[in-house]
Amino acid sequence: MINIAVLGYGTVGSGVVEVIDKNNEAIDMKSGDKIRIKYVLDLRDFPGDRVESVLVHDFDVILNDPEVKIVVEVMGGVEPAYTFVRKSLLAGKSVCTSNKELVAAHGPELIRIARENSINFLFEASVGGAIPVIRPINSSLTADRILEIKGILNGTTNYILTQMDVEGWDFDKALRTAQDLGYAERNPEADIEGYDACRKIAILSSLAFGHNVNYENIYTEGISKITATDIRYAKKMKSAIKLLASCTYEDGKYYAMVAPFIVRSSHPLYSVSGVYNAIFVRGSQIGDVMFYGSGAGKLPTACAVVADIVDAAKHLDKHIYTFWSEENLQLTGTENATRKFFVRVKKDRASCEKLIKDTFGDVKFIELDDVSGEFGFVTTPVTEGSFNEKLKNIPDVCQSIRLESRI
Amino acid sequence: MINIAVLGYGTVGSGVVEVIDKNNEAIDMKSGDKIRIKYVLDLRDFPGDRVESVLVHDFDVILNDPEVKIVVEVMGGVEPAYTFVRKSLLAGKSVCTSNKELVAAHGPELIRIARENSINFLFEASVGGAIPVIRPINSSLTADRILEIKGILNGTTNYILTQMDVEGWDFDKALRTAQDLGYAERNPEADIEGYDACRKIAILSSLAFGHNVNYENIYTEGISKITATDIRYAKKMKSAIKLLASCTYEDGKYYAMVAPFIVRSSHPLYSVSGVYNAIFVRGSQIGDVMFYGSGAGKLPTACAVVADIVDAAKHLDKHIYTFWSEENLQLTGTENATRKFFVRVKKDRASCEKLIKDTFGDVKFIELDDVSGEFGFVTTPVTEGSFNEKLKNIPDVCQSIRLESRI
Repeated sequence: MINIAVLGYGTVGSGVVEVIDKNNEAIDMKSGDKIRIKYVLDLRDFPGDRVESVLVHDFDVILNDPEVKIVVEVMGGVEPAYTFVRKSLLAGKSVCTSNKELVAAHGPELIRIARENSINFLFEASVGGAIPVIRPINSSLTADRILEIKGILNGTTNYILTQMDVEGWDFDKALRTAQDLGYAERNPEADIEGYDACRKIAILSSLAFGHNVNYENIYTEGISKITATDIRYAKKMKSAIKLLASCTYEDGKYYAMVAPFIVRSSHPLYSVSGVYNAIFVRGSQIGDVMFYGSGAGKLPTACAVVADIVDAAKHLDKHIYTFWSEENLQLTGTENATRKFFVRVKKDRASCEKLIKDTFGDVKFIELDDVSGEFGFVTTPVTEGSFNEKLKNIPDVCQSIRLESRI
Repeated sequence: MINIAVLGYGTVGSGVVEVIDKNNEAIDMKSGDKIRIKYVLDLRDFPGDRVESVLVHDFDVILNDPEVKIVVEVMGGVEPAYTFVRKSLLAGKSVCTSNKELVAAHGPELIRIARENSINFLFEASVGGAIPVIRPINSSLTADRILEIKGILNGTTNYILTQMDVEGWDFDKALRTAQDLGYAERNPEADIEGYDACRKIAILSSLAFGHNVNYENIYTEGISKITATDIRYAKKMKSAIKLLASCTYEDGKYYAMVAPFIVRSSHPLYSVSGVYNAIFVRGSQIGDVMFYGSGAGKLPTACAVVADIVDAAKHLDKHIYTFWSEENLQLTGTENATRKFFVRVKKDRASCEKLIKDTFGDVKFIELDDVSGEFGFVTTPVTEGSFNEKLKNIPDVCQSIRLESRI
C-alpha cells in the first residue's frame, strides 16, 4: 500500500480523488501497489463528502506522517504551495503537481531537491492538461537536439480567437461568452494577456533546452487588441490568428515569445481550434512532432496528475532524471528575430503605396472587398527591430501582427 | 560504461550509429553513463566504414559477451530477429527494436521474458517513427480508460492519397511518384494493402487495451481501389480520404479495422498530409489526444530507437511495466460496427433515387458538376452487415467508402 496526500480539494483536487476512486483497479495494477488517499488537505470542511473522513486542515499532519510517500499539490499559486512542496521533498516524499506558477517559479530548485533525495518532483499536468508532453520531452525526444518548441498553450484565448473567426464576433463578445461558459475567469487577465501561456512555455523550453528559462524574461503580448477585422484579413490570407508561445534556437541564439501570430493553413497548429491546446516540437533529426488535446478541464488535468502519481509509485526510491538546470538560459532580445509582418493602414492605398514600397521593399498588399478606407500589407522577412524602426515612417498604422513562418 | 550491440547495419542501424556518434555527449548525460557501441552485427562487410572495427558476422559473439547489456535489433522481419531477441532477453540483455513485424507477432511473449528477467524490451520506434506514442500510452495515459485509438500509421499511403487530392493524380501516378521519391518500395503491397498499418494498430491497441490484439484477426483493406473521382466526391463533402487504422471499445465490444475512410475537415486527422503520421487517442476522461510527426525516415526512426536505448540504460535492472498480456483480446466482427457509408452509382440519379430511398431511408445525394452518368449518396448510420445486404439491391454500384464519424 502506498499512502498519498492531496493538497487542495478544489477543481483539480476533487478530480484526482474521483479518478483514483473510479479507476482504482487499473491504477493499482499499473502502480504495482495499492494507492490509498490517506489525507486531503483543505481549509474548508466538506460534510458528507467522500473525503470527510480523510480531511485535515493542518499540513504538518501530512508532513510528519512517514507513511505518506507521495504528496499531490493541486492548490495552485506560488504560496503556500512552494513551502509545502519544498518541505515534502526535503522530508523524502515525492511530489506531483498541476501548478504551473509553482513550476515556472521554482521548478529547477524543486527538481534538484528531489534528485538529492532520490525521489521525484513530477508536473506533467502543469502544461497542456491531459496532453502528454513533459514526459515525452524528458524521455522520448532525448536522442535529438530540439530546435524549436511552439504551442497553443492557453485554451481560453484559443476559444476566443476561434469564435471570432467562426462566428465573426468581436473580442468582447467572444470573451463574455467564454466567461459565461466557464472557459474564462471573471478576471481574465492571466489568460488574455498571455501570462498563463508565458509560464507554460517557460516550463517547456526549460525542459527542451536543459537550462532554466525565466518566465519574467519572455516577451509577452496578449490577444486583447485583436479585432474581428484582423481575423478577416487573416482568413483572406488562408490563415488564422493564434496566440503562440514559443522558444526557438537559431544560429546559437535562443528566442522566446508569447504573441498573436498569423498562422497559415498548411501549419499543423492552424487547425487547433476551440479550447484545445497543441505543442509543436521541431528536432534537428526527428523533424516536426506535435502533441494535441484538451489543455484544461477537471478530469483531463486530474488524469495527468494521476499518471504522475502512478509514475511516482513505480519509482519510489529512484529519481527520474529531469534536465532542467538552475542556470539561466540566455535569451536573445526579440528585436533580432527575423520574420514577416502583417500591417493594417487606415488610409487610401494609392496615397501611400509608394512610401510603403520605398520603406519595406517588395510587400504584398491585401484588401478586404467590403472594407474601405484601409488596406493591409505583408512585409518580406525583416528583424523586429528594423520593422519597428521602419514602421515609424508609415502614417495611420492601426495594427501589426507577426506571421508564423519558417524563413 | 554501458556496452551495446546493434543488430543490422541497414537504414535504421546506420542511423542509430550516426545519432549516437553525433549526440553522444547529451545521450551519455541523459543515460547517466557512457553508451558505447561494442558490436555491429551484419552479414556484409563495410571496409573503411566507421563500424569496420566493431563489425561481427556471428550473433553468438554478442550473445556470449556478458559486457553487452543492451541489444538493438534493427534488422526487420520476424526471423532471425525473433531468435536473436529472445536469446538476448533470456541472457539478461535488454532489447530495443524498431521491428513492427517482430513486435506484432511476438510482443507479449518478449515483454514477459523481459519482465521475468528484470530487464526491458522496448519498441517505441516500431510505430510512428519519431512520434512518441508507445511510451505515452504506457506511462502518461495510465489513469484513464482508453475508448478508441485511431491513426494514420502509414506514410506511403498517406503520401499517395495526399498527392491524389492535391494534384488530382490517379492512384498509379501517385504510387509511381512515391516509388521514385523512395517513399514506396518497388513491391508496395505491404503499404498499399494496409498490412503495415495493420501490424502497427495491433501493437497500439494491445497496449491501449492491455490484451493481445492478433493482427491476423484485424479486417484490413488497402487503398488501391481509391480513384481520383472518389477523392473529388470527398472534397465536395469537405472531407479527405485517409487510410485509418483503428481499434474501438463500444458497449463492451472491441472493433478493429484498417480501411480507407472519408474524414471530415473538422477531424484532427483530416489535416495530416504527405508522409506524416498521426495517432488519435480518445479516453473516457481525458477526451481527445493526438500525436503527430514523421512516421518514418532513417534519422527520425533512429532517434526513437536511441531514446529507448537511453531508457534501457536508465533502467538496467528494473523492468518498466508494459501492459500487454499474452491473452488475446476478443474482437467483434466488423459486420456489427455502425457507421455511415458513401456509395457511388454508375447510373442516372432519377432512375434509381426511389429505390435508394426505399432501401436506405433518408440518404444524402451528392453529384459532381462535371461528371455525368453517375452520382453518389451518403447513408444514415447503419451496421456494416446490414449495409452490405442492402447494397445488393442497388444496381451499378462502383464504389463504397466508410465515413469516419462519431454517431
